[in-house]
Amino acid sequence: MTDHIRQRAQRVLDGDVLAAARLIRDLDDQLPDAVETLKILYPHTGHAHVVGLTGNPGAGKSTVADGLITWERALGRTVGVVAIDPTSPFSGGAILGDRIRMQRHATDPGVFIRSMATRGHLGGLSRSAADAIMVMDAMGMDVVLVETVGVGQDEVDVVSTAHTSVVVVVPGLGDEIQAIKAGILEIADILVVNKADREGVERTLADLNLMLDLRSDHDRTVEILKTVATRNVGIAELGEAVDAHRKRLESHPEGWRRALGRAEVRLAELLRVRMMNEVFARLGPQGGLSSYSESIARREKDPYTAAEEVVSQVFGGTSD
Amino acid sequence: MTDHIRQRAQRVLDGDVLAAARLIRDLDDQLPDAVETLKILYPHTGHAHVVGLTGNPGAGKSTVADGLITWERALGRTVGVVAIDPTSPFSGGAILGDRIRMQRHATDPGVFIRSMATRGHLGGLSRSAADAIMVMDAMGMDVVLVETVGVGQDEVDVVSTAHTSVVVVVPGLGDEIQAIKAGILEIADILVVNKADREGVERTLADLNLMLDLRSDHDRTVEILKTVATRNVGIAELGEAVDAHRKRLESHPEGWRRALGRAEVRLAELLRVRMMNEVFARLGPQGGLSSYSESIARREKDPYTAAEEVVSQVFGGTSD
Repeated sequence: MTDHIRQRAQRVLDGDVLAAARLIRDLDDQLPDAVETLKILYPHTGHAHVVGLTGNPGAGKSTVADGLITWERALGRTVGVVAIDPTSPFSGGAILGDRIRMQRHATDPGVFIRSMATRGHLGGLSRSAADAIMVMDAMGMDVVLVETVGVGQDEVDVVSTAHTSVVVVVPGLGDEIQAIKAGILEIADILVVNKADREGVERTLADLNLMLDLRSDHDRTVEILKTVATRNVGIAELGEAVDAHRKRLESHPEGWRRALGRAEVRLAELLRVRMMNEVFARLGPQGGLSSYSESIARREKDPYTAAEEVVSQVFGGTSD
Repeated sequence: MTDHIRQRAQRVLDGDVLAAARLIRDLDDQLPDAVETLKILYPHTGHAHVVGLTGNPGAGKSTVADGLITWERALGRTVGVVAIDPTSPFSGGAILGDRIRMQRHATDPGVFIRSMATRGHLGGLSRSAADAIMVMDAMGMDVVLVETVGVGQDEVDVVSTAHTSVVVVVPGLGDEIQAIKAGILEIADILVVNKADREGVERTLADLNLMLDLRSDHDRTVEILKTVATRNVGIAELGEAVDAHRKRLESHPEGWRRALGRAEVRLAELLRVRMMNEVFARLGPQGGLSSYSESIARREKDPYTAAEEVVSQVFGGTSD
């Protein structure tokens, strides 16, 4: 291990914002030096409490996040933010939308914000987000907030690996929106009904309680809170609920079960990429695989037979 | 190959709805017999035109789909529908939402509808959807419509592998919804502004034209159409635009490029699962991997080192 890598890791441990930002970017590209740096950092992680924040567009997630950051800062805690943005697969650019609101914390040295797009991560968004969380954890951030704009499966996967998952909804949404929501509802540890000064809030609370009753996992305690984030109403209660959930996890076997689940997900993600790299390495750069793809496209060979042949070739014909 | 499998394949080729439905279900579970049946069917596929249909909740996708099915049926074409539903990760059940509308085609023997949930597919939704499309193609369906409820990455991945991708939007959406849309906009071959009798339609058209101008892939022709699907306005024009796109693809190198792209995606999906199966098989059932996960959760071993050690173990220590 080179001194360069050791120094890089030390700078992150010292809370150097530029070093951390560069490391997150290099991890996105899976540069070998960055991966080696993360290995040094790993034993120094595990301190930060990771809070996932998701919900439909228009639910006011950014305002809730903004309030939560202010609340945590008032307690003297440092806050890292991983903001997940939807991306155009063509332009590659992330759309920042109402993230501008959060930028008022950008000048606060106790707040470190990184945006990541939902596309273009080697090994997937979930891997990139987990790496960014690890770096922020190693920097000494007390809380890492992972906020998504969308509610797609990618975002849900990221948020579901948080220690505490907060799902923000608003009163009076249409049936279709409610349907979309069902998937994310069930990852929630805390449900926030934001814009709770609007009509229909009681109906929404009743609906949410019904949905929670109907789900199969009754062991999980879910707290439901009302906020009006634009007026800071209910934000302190949310912060306290997050803290309470953290304490509950620490003293409960559920905490270890989740930590193990997170480790399994992380390992599987990395393995998927590494095993595919082995395929590329053993079949030759693109050449080997692309002749299989061509045969499939010409309908000379079905995809299943092709996949079986590739596996046999990778393992020297000794595969099952 | 057993006679049973050959007979099963023949029944699907003869258009047997029950055999096809069962095959799709068994492919979901990746039952070996089902995979063998698909291998027999593969040379008989390639006839169907696959149309992807996506857009935000509330855009009226189902009504557009319904209109398109009626239009295709009037031309005497058979239509397969793969309907992608958002799922609850806990309950495992798909939410049908306004899919009920489409059910009026369920008694038409020229229409074959299958729903699939966004979760619980071995090897991913994209693999399951591709298998279902293949089965419908082999049954002799002239058109296969892949319709999504959501606009998550999973759904976009599915729709983006269609021959012709139709994205449905509505006038006058908020900024946040527009942001979500950006990702799916760029997979569109045809953009449909539905509910075009609403206020703000000209503004939306202008916005869409601007977004298309801004994107980097200028070679791609995108048609923009207006519909009022509830009154069947513009549906025939949409059907004709889909047909025109099909003809353009057939006579253009783009058609082959896309077919090759689809083959690459399919092969990679199957390989990812198969390579992970090799990991499980070679490290022992769960046992081997879970001791690595435990070390990661205890922070005794970082995930990257763990992944490298697993790869070495799988390849007998000869990995790079």
